[in-house]
Amino acid sequence: MARLDDQFAFLLEADRLKQVNRATTLTDGSRRENSAEHSWHLALYAMVLADQARPGVNIDRVIRMLILHDLVEIDVGDVPIHSANGAAHGSAEVAAAEARAADRIFGLLPADVGPGLRALWAEFEAAETPDAIFAKSLDRVQPVLHNIASGGGTWVEYNVTLEQLETRVGQKVARGAPAVWEYLRARMRGFFGPA
Amino acid sequence: MARLDDQFAFLLEADRLKQVNRATTLTDGSRRENSAEHSWHLALYAMVLADQARPGVNIDRVIRMLILHDLVEIDVGDVPIHSANGAAHGSAEVAAAEARAADRIFGLLPADVGPGLRALWAEFEAAETPDAIFAKSLDRVQPVLHNIASGGGTWVEYNVTLEQLETRVGQKVARGAPAVWEYLRARMRGFFGPA
Ligand SMILES: [Ca+2]
Repeated sequence: MARLDDQFAFLLEADRLKQVNRATTLTDGSRRENSAEHSWHLALYAMVLADQARPGVNIDRVIRMLILHDLVEIDVGDVPIHSANGAAHGSAEVAAAEARAADRIFGLLPADVGPGLRALWAEFEAAETPDAIFAKSLDRVQPVLHNIASGGGTWVEYNVTLEQLETRVGQKVARGAPAVWEYLRARMRGFFGPA
Repeated sequence: MARLDDQFAFLLEADRLKQVNRATTLTDGSRRENSAEHSWHLALYAMVLADQARPGVNIDRVIRMLILHDLVEIDVGDVPIHSANGAAHGSAEVAAAEARAADRIFGLLPADVGPGLRALWAEFEAAETPDAIFAKSLDRVQPVLHNIASGGGTWVEYNVTLEQLETRVGQKVARGAPAVWEYLRARMRGFFGPA
């Protein structure tokens, strides 16, 4: 059963994502969120906010993308959006390390499964298709909710301004789910004061 | 935006599942697994073990079921399969408490979203449709992998015999994914000794 050996080797390796911690905390601020439970939460976001997606978005593909979008962090770790004053996230070095991680991790799977999942991860990263654009917008929405709920969270920690938030977060959310960003801006005003 | 208020109220409430701990540990035994990251892992199981499902199983519905199958634990907690010598899990009391939890939690959502998700949860619990049978089998497979990896895990803790494992776990796995159970039995033999 070499096939099941490979499938389970991948699934056991994936377990390590539960030990990768993010900058964002749980909504009650009690501890940092890990990337596995974050990915679960985003899949639920996709199910519940499906009506906010643009026409033609395939929510089932979005859910699959969100389930696997952070697996590369097993090798690379989470790179917080607001760290290094916003310069670390999405740098060429990080992108190259993540591509190597994707090769290794999806490469554990049988040849008829791994490449398809790796392609779905690459599609998410490129953020060009409607499905990936919506998935990315949800990935940006969730920490905003947590920061509002926990009284500032990473915004305080990284000293983020409303202007930086518009560039690093708002534009990406608005691209995939415009009404959600309008809604969140109104709720954030209580935190940052009037813009 | 009362609609988004309700959607986000549900998504924030769901965050609490990250604080519900299961009996099973991570594969390295370092800590107990929580039900949110467990649900994420199961969605990945569905994606990777899709070829093990019986013909006609809709993997996208299975993934959605697995994402929300444990949300009721926010109110009820996790009831380990091997606790109370196998009698607590699936008792009438637990089932009634979980139904109340489902009413409350899915009731937070808009009326065109909540009932559909609650029905999907009830379908999983009933374990009668092909999709639910496959989803349940994955829910039983994952702890077996973790117990093998961590040197016994909850089998040691609850003093479980191979016979009990056949009844509580094996029959359910075999119903949805027969070849997987055969494979796991062979790997478990190293732990329990020859049957
Ligand atoms: Ca992410």
